[in-house]
Amino acid sequence: EIVAAIEAALTDGPLKGRRIVITSGPTHEPIDPVRYIANRSSGAQGTAIANALVRLGAEVVFVSGPASAPPPLGVTLVKVETAQQMHDAVMQALPADAAVFAAAVADWRAASQSAQKIKKTREGLPTLSFAENPDILAAVSQLTEGRPGLVVGFAAETDNVIEHATAKRARKGCDWIVANDVSPATGIMGGTENAVTLISADGAEDWPRMGKDLVADRLAERIADALTGKD
Amino acid sequence: EIVAAIEAALTDGPLKGRRIVITSGPTHEPIDPVRYIANRSSGAQGTAIANALVRLGAEVVFVSGPASAPPPLGVTLVKVETAQQMHDAVMQALPADAAVFAAAVADWRAASQSAQKIKKTREGLPTLSFAENPDILAAVSQLTEGRPGLVVGFAAETDNVIEHATAKRARKGCDWIVANDVSPATGIMGGTENAVTLISADGAEDWPRMGKDLVADRLAERIADALTGKD
Repeated sequence: EIVAAIEAALTDGPLKGRRIVITSGPTHEPIDPVRYIANRSSGAQGTAIANALVRLGAEVVFVSGPASAPPPLGVTLVKVETAQQMHDAVMQALPADAAVFAAAVADWRAASQSAQKIKKTREGLPTLSFAENPDILAAVSQLTEGRPGLVVGFAAETDNVIEHATAKRARKGCDWIVANDVSPATGIMGGTENAVTLISADGAEDWPRMGKDLVADRLAERIADALTGKD
Repeated sequence: EIVAAIEAALTDGPLKGRRIVITSGPTHEPIDPVRYIANRSSGAQGTAIANALVRLGAEVVFVSGPASAPPPLGVTLVKVETAQQMHDAVMQALPADAAVFAAAVADWRAASQSAQKIKKTREGLPTLSFAENPDILAAVSQLTEGRPGLVVGFAAETDNVIEHATAKRARKGCDWIVANDVSPATGIMGGTENAVTLISADGAEDWPRMGKDLVADRLAERIADALTGKD
């Protein structure tokens, strides 16, 4: 893979000279010094997309939460933990030709983070209240200045996948949504395969179930087509 | 390490023929299919303790939550995710000569787990209420039949470490508490070193800060002494 990354950097791929920001992995939102809320995300799909884009010659800024998948090679790696940190890192990484938001960002964080470990008490159980995290996809999609030419979001759903994802695309203002069904029965979360639907202005396009690497290759090709006017 | 494990199994260590149950790693408590609450724990200290006990000849059942540290070799490995599963696995693994509860078990789980991904709504943010998880340390310490001869708990504290840990020992009914200060400033959580205080009926014994492997060796020696009557 090191060889592939170097080869890509030396060759003239279709994305040569294009800068692409990718987010990947989960975010961790601290509750207190020892507890946090997390999303299930191995970072495997985001890493695969980054590798595919690098192979096509792109300059990739990879903003990653604490993922279990090893980070891609040949990218600028920015490690973050929380949604707020991810938001700030993405904004700093702009301008870019495209942005791909593959991270599983926590929608909420604990409204107040305790500096001390919360103890069990006889008075009973704690109740957590939440504050809303910055919506990175919406913020970048709705930039009036410096919006990337192509903004791609992801939608991990467990029911009414296409309906939810189509509504999400309209609500956020992004160009594409890569939607998938992460119900436990599909085995997609944490697995090596993915079955996605690409939602764009043209409608919903179902891709067959395939390896996450192949999903990444196909998406990277589509991004290259879009950025080079072949789409 | 494979060689060390085989050597231990073939040699007559002081713990030859002794069965020890160890818990390690965090637990993950699902909120919905994609979100969970977790404790910060790499599982490094628990793995090191298991390796040290195996080297002394013990038969180890290693009950591990989703840890980032690789599991020890030469043990019976039981993988779990939630506190309830860890409790059940420990009870199944008994009887044992000793039990070492090094896992960072979540005290609480979400009171009700949503089968569908919880969506953002215009009505505002969700509030999570919690249910108490089974207290594995207390349950095993207070067994009237089949209690292991030595029960060792851990206390990860961020303030008043010895006071909290001494109270915990009395409240749970265990024999020893290995207490440490996991305040972020110590760098212990996720790091390679640990600075522990061993709380027993004899009082509090501060150990110097040292590698987690050395803490494990020292604790394993103490366990061997206790089980073989040298303590």
